[in-house]
Amino acid sequence: MAEGLLLTSRRGTLVAHVAASAIVEESADWTAFALSRRAQALTGMALPGVLSGAFALGVPALDAFPMAAWRRTLDRAWRETRPSELDYADPAGLQVLRQAIADYLQAARGVRCDAGQVVVTNGTQASLELCVHLFTDAGDTAWIENPGYLGALSAFRGGQLRTVGIAVDDEGIVPTAGDWERTPPRLIYTSPSHQYPSGGVLGMRRRLALLDNAQHAGALIIEDDYDSEFRHDGPPLPAMQGLVSSSPVIYLGTFSKTMFPAMRTGFMVLPPGLAEVVRPVLTRMPMHGRVPEQRALAAFLGSGQFLQHLRRMRRLYRERRDALLDALDRHVGGIAAVHGAGTGMHLSLRLSDPAWRDDQITDAALAAGIAVHCMTRHETGLRKTSWTGLLLGYSQVPATEIDAAVQRLAGIACRAATMRAR
Amino acid sequence: MAEGLLLTSRRGTLVAHVAASAIVEESADWTAFALSRRAQALTGMALPGVLSGAFALGVPALDAFPMAAWRRTLDRAWRETRPSELDYADPAGLQVLRQAIADYLQAARGVRCDAGQVVVTNGTQASLELCVHLFTDAGDTAWIENPGYLGALSAFRGGQLRTVGIAVDDEGIVPTAGDWERTPPRLIYTSPSHQYPSGGVLGMRRRLALLDNAQHAGALIIEDDYDSEFRHDGPPLPAMQGLVSSSPVIYLGTFSKTMFPAMRTGFMVLPPGLAEVVRPVLTRMPMHGRVPEQRALAAFLGSGQFLQHLRRMRRLYRERRDALLDALDRHVGGIAAVHGAGTGMHLSLRLSDPAWRDDQITDAALAAGIAVHCMTRHETGLRKTSWTGLLLGYSQVPATEIDAAVQRLAGIACRAATMRAR
Repeated sequence: MAEGLLLTSRRGTLVAHVAASAIVEESADWTAFALSRRAQALTGMALPGVLSGAFALGVPALDAFPMAAWRRTLDRAWRETRPSELDYADPAGLQVLRQAIADYLQAARGVRCDAGQVVVTNGTQASLELCVHLFTDAGDTAWIENPGYLGALSAFRGGQLRTVGIAVDDEGIVPTAGDWERTPPRLIYTSPSHQYPSGGVLGMRRRLALLDNAQHAGALIIEDDYDSEFRHDGPPLPAMQGLVSSSPVIYLGTFSKTMFPAMRTGFMVLPPGLAEVVRPVLTRMPMHGRVPEQRALAAFLGSGQFLQHLRRMRRLYRERRDALLDALDRHVGGIAAVHGAGTGMHLSLRLSDPAWRDDQITDAALAAGIAVHCMTRHETGLRKTSWTGLLLGYSQVPATEIDAAVQRLAGIACRAATMRAR
Repeated sequence: MAEGLLLTSRRGTLVAHVAASAIVEESADWTAFALSRRAQALTGMALPGVLSGAFALGVPALDAFPMAAWRRTLDRAWRETRPSELDYADPAGLQVLRQAIADYLQAARGVRCDAGQVVVTNGTQASLELCVHLFTDAGDTAWIENPGYLGALSAFRGGQLRTVGIAVDDEGIVPTAGDWERTPPRLIYTSPSHQYPSGGVLGMRRRLALLDNAQHAGALIIEDDYDSEFRHDGPPLPAMQGLVSSSPVIYLGTFSKTMFPAMRTGFMVLPPGLAEVVRPVLTRMPMHGRVPEQRALAAFLGSGQFLQHLRRMRRLYRERRDALLDALDRHVGGIAAVHGAGTGMHLSLRLSDPAWRDDQITDAALAAGIAVHCMTRHETGLRKTSWTGLLLGYSQVPATEIDAAVQRLAGIACRAATMRAR
C-alpha cells in the first residue's frame, strides 16, 4: 500500500492498475535534449586534462607542500570542532578564517579590508561566478584582458554577458578612450600584479587611471591577484585594491597557488558597503562552509606556517625561474624574448618571427611530452592580439631538468616552424 | 620603476605625474550600486539563522556523529594521498567516490546508475544551481511543489526561470492536465520519497504517471531524495529514478543529512547519455574536487561504517519520532493531525481549525525558544496552498525532552490562536 500498488477505496482494497503506456522503457536519446544556451556557451571551451611537469601552468610545486604539517593542523582543527559546528555554517566563511585572511592581506598585499568584507569561496572560478551572479544580468558588458584568463571568460559567457576583449601591452590592460565610450563596462576583469597570461605588471599611473575611470563609469573592477605572492626581484607589489579608499574593486585571491588546488578554497574581498548588500543573498546560494577545514586553514595562516611555506616556495620558484632564464638565454635567445618573469610561477616568451605559429609549436611540444601553452589560445576577444608566444610554467620542474627541457623545446619549435615553411 | 612611479623615456628617468583627480578618496555609496536582477530575485528570501534543538528542521543529530571514526578515516585518506593528487581533480568527482556512491544507490535506493553518471557537488543547493545552469535558460518554466523546498525555488529564481507552484496533496505533487497543457515544464522539482515539507509519499501509480508525462513533455524531473534513508516503518522505498530505464530523472542526494552539513558534499545522478553531454561543460565550472576528503568519504562508504552509522541514526530518529508521536497524541490530538511521519527527520502537523494562523504560532514559539517552522512559509507559487500546519523536526531533540517541549508548544499554539481571536 505504501508503494501505491494497493489502493483502498470504499469498495475495499484493490490492486492498482498500472497502465502499460506509463512504463518508459525505450532508451532515451539525450543528445536531443539540448543543453541550455548558457551551458552551450561553454562547450567550445572544454579544458584539456590538467598537465603537469615542464612547463605546465598554474599548479604549484605540489611535492614541496608540507603535507605532514598540514595533516597535523587539520587533525587538530577536527579535534577542536564541536559536533554542533558540523552544521550549515556562515555562508561568508568561518569568522576566524576571514579574520586571518584579512590580516594576511593587509600585511602582505596592501589590501584595505576587515573580516566583514571577506567572503570565502570554493576557489577563483566560484568567486568569478559569484561576481557575475551578484552584479550582472544577461547582456551586461564585461571587459576582459585580451589575451586573458579563460576562466573569467567562461564565467562571463556562462552569465550571458557581452564580453569585450581589451588590449594588453607590456604592462597589462590598456583600455582606450574609445573602449570607455563605446562599450562602457559593468565589470572589468584584470590581473594587474602579473597579467595572465602575458606576465605584465601594471604601473601605478595606469592603476590609478583605471580606478578613476571605473569609478566614473560605475563599473566594478575584479582584481585577480592569483600568484603575486611570488615576486622574485623585490618585495611584492601592493594590490590595486588598497591604493585608494573605497576603490570600486573586488579583490580575488586563491589558496590554489599558495597551498594546493584540491583545497578548493579562495576568497573575495568586497568594498565595505557592498559586503553588507551582498550578505543576505549569500544565504540563498550554495555557500555554507566546511568548518574544520576552514579552522585548519586559519590556524595555518595564524601560526606562521603559511608564511614559512610561502618563503620556501618563493625561494624554490626563484631558483627554477633563474634556471629557466639561463636556459632560455642559451637556447632561444635569438628567436624569442622573455616577458613577465618577475612574478609568479610562469613567464611568457614572445616569438621574434611573427610567421611562427605558437599553437603549432604548442601542439608539437605536447606530442613530444612537453606541456607548453601558447598566447593565441588565450585570446578572449574578437580582435586578434598582437601577441604570439609560449607560456612556460616553471613551478613544477626541478631546476636541474630545465636546461634539457628548454633545449628540447627549442628544437621542437624550430622544427615546427620549419615544417610550416616548407 | 616597477611601481610605475618612475618612467623611462628617451629623455631619461622622470617622476611620473599622478593626476590628483585619479585618486578616488570619497567614500562610495554602494547601495546605489544595485545588485543584479538575478541576485535581487533572492533578497526577499534570505534564510534566517540556522535553528537547532526542538523542533529544528533538516539538520541531523550532530552529537551522534562518530567524529573520532571519521577523523581517523580522513587522516588515513590524507596519508594515502600523493602530492600530485593535490592538483585540480576530475570535475565530476574522484572515481572511487563516484563508484562508492553508485554502489550504495543501487543497493539502498534502487537507483539505476554506474559511476559515470554520478557528479559529486558541494551539496544539494550546488546540484540545483548546476541543473538550472545546464538545462535551462532564463524564462524557461520550472515546476516546484507548493508547498515546497525554498532552496529549489531560490535556485530557479536565481536562474530567472518562470516558476510554477504545483499543488501537493496527501501523497505529494499532483499536477493537473491543465498544468501540463498550460505551463509545460522544462524542469520538475519533486521530493517523492518524503515530500518537503508536508511529508507525503508519492504512490507508485502517481510516480509512473509523472515519469510518463514528463517524458512526453520533454521535461527533466529533479528527484530530491534528501532524507529517505530514514524510513521508520518498513524498508526504504526505492527511488523514482530506478522505476524505469532511461527515465528522464536527475536524482539528487546529499551527505548533509546522512553525514553532516559542513561536509558540503552532495551528488547528482544524470541519465547515462546526458552525463556524456554534460561532461565537457563541467570542466569550465567551479567543480574540481577535494581529493583527500572525497577519498575518505569513499572509504567510509566502502568499509561499512556509513551503513552502520545510518542504522544507528535510523534507530535514534525512530525513537525520537515515536516519542514525538506519543507526545502529540497526548497534547495536540484534538487540534492537529500528524502527516508524513513514516520517513526522514521531520513530520508535519495539520491544524484542524483553519482559522488558526500557523505563522503566528511559529513566531510565538520562536519567541519562546522553540524552533518551529510552518507550512504557509513554504509556499512556492502564486496559488495559496490549502495546507496550514507546523513542521516539527525531531532529529536534534532527545526523546526524553520531547514531551515537555510538545506540551509547551501546545500551550503557545493555543495562546497564539486565542490572542488572535480576541
